[in-house]
Amino acid sequence: MSSTTTTLRKSGRPQAAYSETREALCRAGVAALTERGFSASGIDEILSKAGVPKGSFYHYFRSKEAFGSELIRRYANYFAAKLDRHFGNELLSPLNRLRAFLGDAEAGMARYDFRRGCLVGNLGQEMGALPESYRDQLAEVFLDWQARTAQCLTAARNAGELAPDADPARLAEFFWIGWEGAVLRSKLERNVGPLRLFSQTFLATIERSDRFIGPFVDDRSRKAAQTPSRRAARPPRG
Amino acid sequence: MSSTTTTLRKSGRPQAAYSETREALCRAGVAALTERGFSASGIDEILSKAGVPKGSFYHYFRSKEAFGSELIRRYANYFAAKLDRHFGNELLSPLNRLRAFLGDAEAGMARYDFRRGCLVGNLGQEMGALPESYRDQLAEVFLDWQARTAQCLTAARNAGELAPDADPARLAEFFWIGWEGAVLRSKLERNVGPLRLFSQTFLATIERSDRFIGPFVDDRSRKAAQTPSRRAARPPRG
Repeated sequence: MSSTTTTLRKSGRPQAAYSETREALCRAGVAALTERGFSASGIDEILSKAGVPKGSFYHYFRSKEAFGSELIRRYANYFAAKLDRHFGNELLSPLNRLRAFLGDAEAGMARYDFRRGCLVGNLGQEMGALPESYRDQLAEVFLDWQARTAQCLTAARNAGELAPDADPARLAEFFWIGWEGAVLRSKLERNVGPLRLFSQTFLATIERSDRFIGPFVDDRSRKAAQTPSRRAARPPRG
Repeated sequence: MSSTTTTLRKSGRPQAAYSETREALCRAGVAALTERGFSASGIDEILSKAGVPKGSFYHYFRSKEAFGSELIRRYANYFAAKLDRHFGNELLSPLNRLRAFLGDAEAGMARYDFRRGCLVGNLGQEMGALPESYRDQLAEVFLDWQARTAQCLTAARNAGELAPDADPARLAEFFWIGWEGAVLRSKLERNVGPLRLFSQTFLATIERSDRFIGPFVDDRSRKAAQTPSRRAARPPRG
């Protein structure tokens, strides 16, 4: 892909080439930011990984700041879609939807040998050295993920998996605050331990422990959301 | 302070000047790493803040990697001493010692307007771009802080503030995983909200809710560790 394609981008195939190159730059950018963060990632390295010649960056993005902002937006949307896919799965009870998301997130980190973390967490940590415009954008991503998680926890409360006085919004915020710490620690230790300890302790803590322990019910039943599962037998921590 | 002092550092006063300069470099280094992280902090900027001429860095540290390692060690020790000061305060009940530490940590972040976070958390997040030798060093700092916190939680369990089957080591690990996420979020949002939400939810979750709610007892009583306090009246989350 050469930068000359960009001069023709009003018509068919060149437009496609332009989009492909821009896409390749975004993929390389997300990989760099999840692995090394913003400050340690050079634009030259990203261009080189995407096979784009030096000097043609500004054909694709008006500034490095705009490029970073686009990467945040893409990552946020990718993750929101992942949350929706799990939280909308009515074959599982609401808390098991959350468990499925957590398993997916674990697998995502394991796939890259725990070298890649969360782009939003990385940039949040680095805000002291980043364009101020990212601050609100990053904070809003967390609010969005929390809102989706709160919906799932509300469904869990309605299904009797949480206590009736549980506060889904607060628990969702608590979860996302801590989960970013867990991603950080798993990346540091290069293993799944911290992710799993955090999620299991969180779940054991919030899951209602005093409800009726019925017989084992297949989670794939559509009624799973309304029926107690064996997991409820686990005592609360602390 | 000039670099010439270093050539005389075997005897009295020059040795003191050498130590002072080295100390100033470490203070400026810790400030830079807590605020901007490692990748975004230049040695030149740190030298300049410490009033040390460019080019004399290697009189004080054999390499940038050794300098970073020294900063991790100092920060770890500083924080371990802070934990010991609070956790060793027998005027408070064990859980109130933890509360006192949390209040101190909040005040520490507020003092710098939430611009400075945790040096160990920042470098842990950045490990993908740092010398590999830091990985074990950083992981061990967390283990050390967790061990001190687990001792405090063991005391809380023995004092009846936690349930008899609470697992102090696991709760301490859960706390430190999540707390680093809370520091990250408070730095991002530039306010105390995430720190407070995390610590309050954590405490409400672990504190034993089924014990006798006695009359209010002054925390400063030496017997505080053995007597229930009003906080126990708070219902558990979830």
